[in-house]
Amino acid sequence: MKTAKWIWYPGDFELELANKCMTRRYERDTPVPPFWRLDRAYPNVKFIKNFKLQKRNEIMIKAEGKLNLMLNDRFIYNFNGILFLGPGDYRFVISVYNDSGLPCLYLESEELVSDESWEVTCNDHRYFAATTDKLVHNSTPNNVRLSTTRIEAVAIIKQENAVVYDFGKEMMAYPFFEGIQSKGVIRLYYGESFAEASDLEHCETLDYYSITHEKEFQTPIARAFRYLAIISDVKYEKLSAMAEFIPVDFCSSFSCSDPLLTEIYQVSLSTLHLNMREFMLDGIKRDRWLWSGDAYQSYLMDYYSFFETDVIKRTMLALFGKTPIKTHINHIMDYSFYWLMAFDDYYRYTGDSVFIDNNFPKILEMLDFCLSRTNKNGLMEGLPGDWVFVDWADLDNSGEVAFEQMLLYLALDRVIKLGKILRKEETVKKYAEWKISVQNKLEKFWNEGKGAYVYSFKNGKADGVITRHPNMLAVLFDIADSQRKQIIKERVLLNSGVPPITTPYMRFYELAALCELGEYDYVMKEIRDYWGGMLSEGATSFWETYDHRQTGVEKYAMYGRRYGKSLCHAWGASPLYLIGKYFIGLTPGKTESEFILRPHLSDLDWFNAELPLAKGKIRIHVDHEKIELYSDKANGELILDGTLNICGAEAIHHNNLTTIKIKGSTNYILEIQ
Amino acid sequence: MKTAKWIWYPGDFELELANKCMTRRYERDTPVPPFWRLDRAYPNVKFIKNFKLQKRNEIMIKAEGKLNLMLNDRFIYNFNGILFLGPGDYRFVISVYNDSGLPCLYLESEELVSDESWEVTCNDHRYFAATTDKLVHNSTPNNVRLSTTRIEAVAIIKQENAVVYDFGKEMMAYPFFEGIQSKGVIRLYYGESFAEASDLEHCETLDYYSITHEKEFQTPIARAFRYLAIISDVKYEKLSAMAEFIPVDFCSSFSCSDPLLTEIYQVSLSTLHLNMREFMLDGIKRDRWLWSGDAYQSYLMDYYSFFETDVIKRTMLALFGKTPIKTHINHIMDYSFYWLMAFDDYYRYTGDSVFIDNNFPKILEMLDFCLSRTNKNGLMEGLPGDWVFVDWADLDNSGEVAFEQMLLYLALDRVIKLGKILRKEETVKKYAEWKISVQNKLEKFWNEGKGAYVYSFKNGKADGVITRHPNMLAVLFDIADSQRKQIIKERVLLNSGVPPITTPYMRFYELAALCELGEYDYVMKEIRDYWGGMLSEGATSFWETYDHRQTGVEKYAMYGRRYGKSLCHAWGASPLYLIGKYFIGLTPGKTESEFILRPHLSDLDWFNAELPLAKGKIRIHVDHEKIELYSDKANGELILDGTLNICGAEAIHHNNLTTIKIKGSTNYILEIQ
Repeated sequence: MKTAKWIWYPGDFELELANKCMTRRYERDTPVPPFWRLDRAYPNVKFIKNFKLQKRNEIMIKAEGKLNLMLNDRFIYNFNGILFLGPGDYRFVISVYNDSGLPCLYLESEELVSDESWEVTCNDHRYFAATTDKLVHNSTPNNVRLSTTRIEAVAIIKQENAVVYDFGKEMMAYPFFEGIQSKGVIRLYYGESFAEASDLEHCETLDYYSITHEKEFQTPIARAFRYLAIISDVKYEKLSAMAEFIPVDFCSSFSCSDPLLTEIYQVSLSTLHLNMREFMLDGIKRDRWLWSGDAYQSYLMDYYSFFETDVIKRTMLALFGKTPIKTHINHIMDYSFYWLMAFDDYYRYTGDSVFIDNNFPKILEMLDFCLSRTNKNGLMEGLPGDWVFVDWADLDNSGEVAFEQMLLYLALDRVIKLGKILRKEETVKKYAEWKISVQNKLEKFWNEGKGAYVYSFKNGKADGVITRHPNMLAVLFDIADSQRKQIIKERVLLNSGVPPITTPYMRFYELAALCELGEYDYVMKEIRDYWGGMLSEGATSFWETYDHRQTGVEKYAMYGRRYGKSLCHAWGASPLYLIGKYFIGLTPGKTESEFILRPHLSDLDWFNAELPLAKGKIRIHVDHEKIELYSDKANGELILDGTLNICGAEAIHHNNLTTIKIKGSTNYILEIQ
Repeated sequence: MKTAKWIWYPGDFELELANKCMTRRYERDTPVPPFWRLDRAYPNVKFIKNFKLQKRNEIMIKAEGKLNLMLNDRFIYNFNGILFLGPGDYRFVISVYNDSGLPCLYLESEELVSDESWEVTCNDHRYFAATTDKLVHNSTPNNVRLSTTRIEAVAIIKQENAVVYDFGKEMMAYPFFEGIQSKGVIRLYYGESFAEASDLEHCETLDYYSITHEKEFQTPIARAFRYLAIISDVKYEKLSAMAEFIPVDFCSSFSCSDPLLTEIYQVSLSTLHLNMREFMLDGIKRDRWLWSGDAYQSYLMDYYSFFETDVIKRTMLALFGKTPIKTHINHIMDYSFYWLMAFDDYYRYTGDSVFIDNNFPKILEMLDFCLSRTNKNGLMEGLPGDWVFVDWADLDNSGEVAFEQMLLYLALDRVIKLGKILRKEETVKKYAEWKISVQNKLEKFWNEGKGAYVYSFKNGKADGVITRHPNMLAVLFDIADSQRKQIIKERVLLNSGVPPITTPYMRFYELAALCELGEYDYVMKEIRDYWGGMLSEGATSFWETYDHRQTGVEKYAMYGRRYGKSLCHAWGASPLYLIGKYFIGLTPGKTESEFILRPHLSDLDWFNAELPLAKGKIRIHVDHEKIELYSDKANGELILDGTLNICGAEAIHHNNLTTIKIKGSTNYILEIQ
């Protein structure tokens, strides 16, 4: 018997849910909606299905919205939720109109159920497969909430005005009061740090609730905190926190001979999990918004940890919104390009061409939007309203910024790749010319004398400024050839005269680029210093920015606000990617059903790791003497640096590398001699 | 002191309200939403205002939606509805997010109020003047309801199962029960005819309501009826009807020596008023939807009766919806063209170029959408999903239908005219070429032998079918020259061998065309026969179609349903236009501030009429001996057929016409000698 699912118009669940999630942002008592256009679900849709019944079926039908049933071209009157139909051929056209949320349908019977085999239209003569989402399981599509688990305070600190509860770690949670014995007002002041929660005048988030008759009370909006200060007229017996999280398979693990690195991995996992909710959020305390550049990195981390691809798809769809495109995603030029590039990663890691195919019209519209905004030189330059971001740093982003042109080039390259996979020859041809043209234009940014790509061109002249940003991008994404890469490494990336990067956001690319250049030991040290530094500050999740020189409360400040900094920021979790891709060394093979493993111990004595694949997973132990490897399903290749003698399998030597073919469902114990 | 108004993003009030209105359509107990795409308000908007205060103001601010106040770039915390601001320069950026309706703002203080001087954006970097609507006066924008007035039953007829109340005339009303003495279920069966209300199994609309404790009960949805059958477990003392209507100025009147014509005018007025609600509806019983072709005629009738232009603007905006355009308006090819043409009428009658200017991007998008769908001959031909309608009649609308090409030509012509007014030279130039090209292509439809435009071309060949439709359009809109017009009159319009038109919808154009050809007496007779025929059937409003040969209940049937026909259909009110434009003889002059009056008594002895102008009104009495005329504001010209001697003013004779210049605020008594 087939399983009935709530179904809807593709992409619309994501829009409605993202609107709900993003508008839960408050600063103090003030709601702060996103500053970009939000779009809504089509309110008036039709679900269509031709079907045959072999016998009499009792069909239960429900909808969120007004329901109109048309069976074989006739309205069904007096419908009370159940329909009985005998054997025969039928056609259902079911209209659902919802003026306050997502119109959606649920139909259950022995032979016929609502599922992705139904067609849906927003009444514009275009018909798509209906979609569903596993977030909708014990609720309806318009009332989706994540799972919760109870967390008890580990300490209660009485202060002059307030009582501060310490829950021991960063959470996104609903405070939950039990044994309420009186009425009155409860005031809650949330803090990611103790300093924040106890600074009632300046903490970023707070709530006031009136209790009239309740014996128990759970707040309606989950907030990010570890510490919670309470001022209450109300007597209650107990306060705990109902931590809200997305149920995922904790299918990755990493432990090694260095406990600090093991802890960094753990806290990264927790940081990503906290920010990976209905969507990939930037940070859970403050924005709770979807930012395409932040999310792009979260997707990559996700492939190396939870491999939870539904949240990626939801985020991609919500970021796009609805046509017509009038601005860059999040108003940020870079973020439109990251959105495009993310489809290529998604395909490489998952092999899911259906999602690419379904969204290819959106991909093309976004790329055309960007191309329609090139300047007279055919390059990207900020137009009024565009935010050219690159990084939180003191950057002059006027003119033709090299970083943006590189992203344009990469976006073109990725769309062409996807076009080839989907066999869209006309599209491929059209953009191939653009790509070559942009590739040629990138040359003007290369300054041979400085051994670096300059930051930008203004009024036809190079500005001469050298930053790490375009240079690490050129290394990471093979824009520079191998000779230039070496020059960039020496003259920029390992040159302390070039200003350092302070955000984990851009450190992600910098450290990845250094790994690409073989600087494993350097990167290992940087990870220990930077992320280890936050741990030494007591972090239970990684931060939006970190500067070890800041001490005391000043380290919590940002955006001119005392506690403006997010202490649980998705981009802080990048060690997941760095460790997964460069130390454990996993990448997809020629297809997503194969893998390549190229482990690097660096200065570690050993590590144990488990990582997910699109289909299946791998487990690996590496030390200086041996490698133990098991892949439950996929075949792959193990590649080791150097020409090594291996016991336990046949090894191929080539280009100073040792390659061992790995078959799925086989335990390998490979001794390195 | 300025008046505070609820304000919102332009066009969005109309979308949300139209969705509400159209989804109140039910067939029996089944909701029937429109079969086209519905769009929604942008949920997340910003209102912006720079202002200066001279003194301390107490500012009251409220919104429908979540409110975020930013004053001089800083959030206002702890906002409780009132803000005190001292003298100074300020900038407000107020965000409103509404996830279930229209985000809107209301701000009131001595010096600063919310009104059309505020800017608004949907956060796409495009800024527009905020708009308001006078429908919002004693409610909020999301809760607009029209006015009501109590109507008592004129007769109560007891039947076997039910009691039938006769309210004496067609209404859109909420049944209202008073003195309820018990609980139970009330079943209501509505009828535009007695036959319908008392046929419980087949009446088009019905409602069941459970009464639990109410002493009084008014139904939540107004329905169209004159008769109401009740089956009730509930005891109540009284049932009346709260008739719902749009408050308008009854600023037109017409009475004449023929009481039948006087009555036809009255019932037309009532028919239009009933269908002219939040929007111009097609009919109040069944569709309650916005149909562009129907509405186009209602606009024209409105200029000759209520001159209520807000409802026209609301309807035009709601019909457009939001970009991107994916289908014709209402899916009907003709209806996209009528929508475009309506802007020209609107401008001619009102002189309001602001509305045209604000919506010119939409106008161009709609025209381009149509042009993008021309076939290889550059003509319109139905594409998959397109409904080529023309009329409810047995028409083969495949191939290149002449009627549609004429509408395309007219749409191009009208957009060019508007482009000239707005000084959009590029636009004018672009479409002028298109227009000439279509004009030339229309020639192939003219069949000299038949003295008529043929109905269509299929596969390069004329189908040879002659109907009135393209021919009356060619006369009415000057597509044919005067010689062809005379040929069409004889060979088509006055030729009983050409199948007659049976819908008031197309009779509108047919009779108008005949008036243009000077056939006043013929048209007068047709009006008496056709509309008088409905009155002789007891009509209190005019019908969707009428055929005097149908007798008994068969006259109520349509669309295969026993009471499918609408007995209160907007297009039934066309005598308002025919009498106003051709018998009273009013048209706008060179500008909307001038008028031309060319009265025709036809076979009447006299008439008295009052008609609105864009600014002001005219009153006129005409009989065979004299004309009395008063215009309260506008200047104009009175034109009489023939070379006449006039006492009371100076007359100019030219081309067998007599013209008298009329000055506003002057009483004229003109004796014809």
